[in-house]
Amino acid sequence: MEALGAWRQRVASELDAVVAFWERNSHDPQLGGFFSCLSHEGNVYDDTKYVWMQGRQVWVYSRLYRTVPRFRRPELLEAARAGGEFLLRFAPLGPDSPRVAFALTRDGRPVRTQRNPYSEAFVAVGLDELGRAAGEPRYRAAGRSWALALLGWVRGAPLELGPPQFSGSPPRQALALPLMALTVAEQLLGGDPKTQEPGGDPQIEELAEWGAHAALRHLQRGDSVVLENVSPEGRELPGSLGRLMNPGHALEAGWLLLGFSGRRGEAALGTRALGALVTGPLAWGWDPQHGGLFAFLDADGHCPTQLEWSMKLWWPHLEAMVALLAAYEHRPDPKFLEDFDRVATYAFDKFRDPEHGEWFGYLSREGNVALSLKGGPYKGCFHVPRALMMCEEMLGRILEREGASK
Amino acid sequence: MEALGAWRQRVASELDAVVAFWERNSHDPQLGGFFSCLSHEGNVYDDTKYVWMQGRQVWVYSRLYRTVPRFRRPELLEAARAGGEFLLRFAPLGPDSPRVAFALTRDGRPVRTQRNPYSEAFVAVGLDELGRAAGEPRYRAAGRSWALALLGWVRGAPLELGPPQFSGSPPRQALALPLMALTVAEQLLGGDPKTQEPGGDPQIEELAEWGAHAALRHLQRGDSVVLENVSPEGRELPGSLGRLMNPGHALEAGWLLLGFSGRRGEAALGTRALGALVTGPLAWGWDPQHGGLFAFLDADGHCPTQLEWSMKLWWPHLEAMVALLAAYEHRPDPKFLEDFDRVATYAFDKFRDPEHGEWFGYLSREGNVALSLKGGPYKGCFHVPRALMMCEEMLGRILEREGASK
Repeated sequence: MEALGAWRQRVASELDAVVAFWERNSHDPQLGGFFSCLSHEGNVYDDTKYVWMQGRQVWVYSRLYRTVPRFRRPELLEAARAGGEFLLRFAPLGPDSPRVAFALTRDGRPVRTQRNPYSEAFVAVGLDELGRAAGEPRYRAAGRSWALALLGWVRGAPLELGPPQFSGSPPRQALALPLMALTVAEQLLGGDPKTQEPGGDPQIEELAEWGAHAALRHLQRGDSVVLENVSPEGRELPGSLGRLMNPGHALEAGWLLLGFSGRRGEAALGTRALGALVTGPLAWGWDPQHGGLFAFLDADGHCPTQLEWSMKLWWPHLEAMVALLAAYEHRPDPKFLEDFDRVATYAFDKFRDPEHGEWFGYLSREGNVALSLKGGPYKGCFHVPRALMMCEEMLGRILEREGASK
Repeated sequence: MEALGAWRQRVASELDAVVAFWERNSHDPQLGGFFSCLSHEGNVYDDTKYVWMQGRQVWVYSRLYRTVPRFRRPELLEAARAGGEFLLRFAPLGPDSPRVAFALTRDGRPVRTQRNPYSEAFVAVGLDELGRAAGEPRYRAAGRSWALALLGWVRGAPLELGPPQFSGSPPRQALALPLMALTVAEQLLGGDPKTQEPGGDPQIEELAEWGAHAALRHLQRGDSVVLENVSPEGRELPGSLGRLMNPGHALEAGWLLLGFSGRRGEAALGTRALGALVTGPLAWGWDPQHGGLFAFLDADGHCPTQLEWSMKLWWPHLEAMVALLAAYEHRPDPKFLEDFDRVATYAFDKFRDPEHGEWFGYLSREGNVALSLKGGPYKGCFHVPRALMMCEEMLGRILEREGASK
């Protein structure tokens, strides 16, 4: 097993290379905003600007600027601000609509929407963090208005442009929704445990509580599985939809719930998250034949209908790295560090591009690069830098706590 | 190269095995309609009934009953009729709506719709062929009403539940729409060249003409590429969307246009289809490294953003087999038979399941089975039996014309 100190160095230097890739290739100084469709060398192959990716990159740059001393460079904050201004100006579908576009043309005209409210959530986290980094309350106020829209929707307010409902379609909750609610709420409540203000924003605290409790409804069959879709009351749904599992989402839920339970002092919740959302998904989600985490599985062992089910995607491996270090901080069991070493070794070996920076996103089941692109409609400047900065910070705390011997 | 007579025997015996798979596993005698979510052994893993799959299976059973003597079994027609009745009763979204559901519960309640009008098109072809097989005009009249709805939509009538339009989204035409229009129209105009009634139904003839001419708009760059999405005027669209190519759709367009041009005596159109829609896509769509047709490609050689772009799907290979025999019937160049032998050999080797019948649908780029299922939301009783029955018929005609020596 590689020493933790060596991992911290490797993670930090990879973070530098990854951020450099995005700074070098994704900015649009003419029209603002960020390109995300980048080839493996960093060339723009499509100039569509995806709102998820704008909000996420604003968040990454702002968080790096605010919390990682070597990234406190004015040009990084300026790039984040340019992204935030682009979002404020072009993302909303209209002055009276809380909904934002999913994709924009290079010059900011709306191309299409999504039925789900995830674009709004990424706008909220990006603007809130920009407000903190820049010290400008107006960004945080704008972010909060989208967070409150999300609170309204999870409470049941009708979602403009949402999916039509039919009698044969049972109401369902996708795990992504509580994960988004928890991500937004924890961001607005402080971003990291040291700066929380408990009770400071009851509405946002309600959003966090809804997210945490709604996420738990996806733990089924005595916590032995995590189902991607359940009824709003937490019952299993029939068919492939009801049996679908997504190891990456389960592991992301793991570290989000560990953070929530730590902040709130809910020890039992933390213990449950460790077992059902970290140890569990790493076991059932791992490909025993070729290594790596599957994209999707069926809880009863049927073949999933998603064509990419057995592909190895970059982000579940990064969620696993974060979840395992968060688990070790919660309960210092060396098994978590051994698993971190195994997952991080697989991820660095398979996804990393030492030549051009940033990771490949999509491998075949066997672990070969299947899509040579570095960014696209759903992959931008987010999972790699977010996970690396979180891992660097956690590895630093662990090393500090345990002394330099490890 | 395998002799044509041997191919005819192989194709015919495979058709028998495939139809037996669906007759054995997909019927629902209790509630009507067909299951399509079947495991590799034929077990139902999800009982959702997809409207595409209902219309397609009704078509396959009815066409086999009507045109292939060994399938003229009353139970096959009865199964088709049960499927048709299920569609008439449950597919429409309402008494005043021309739109039908995309998916139904086992007992026929609507689950969801699609924005595009392909479900309606498959209902039209299924009911028209059922009406011919059963000798019951009411099925054909119902099929025609959906064909006329499709004609209205391609003429520009607003599509209820269609996609919202935004200022940054250029109007676009997907190749699937002219292919559907041509499929529906050629079905209603006779189904095969021997029974055409030219001028017999001017509105449906207009639908065929629209389909043929609209399909040609996708031939770009001097006919060297076939683009999946173009402007309604036939101009290239920007970005990945505009550069997307789908070899299977191009080859399907090939045999559909050969049929249209043959029926109408438009020789120049047939020649153009041979080059741009048969020879071309077989060359640029074939994987030189592992064999087989790619699912998607980018016309400028960028990496497509579709995660499955390099996977080998069953249906493009079947469209290629049909297109190559249709090409040979159009112009008896032995190159087409050599290519048929190459594609059919790949397809029979890789997709066929000699144990349980019906083909696997989804292989990795390397040609290994990636999804073990035999049917799902988008794969049912359609492409394999349709192509095999068309190939058996064409091989029979070719052998008859050329004598038994080949």
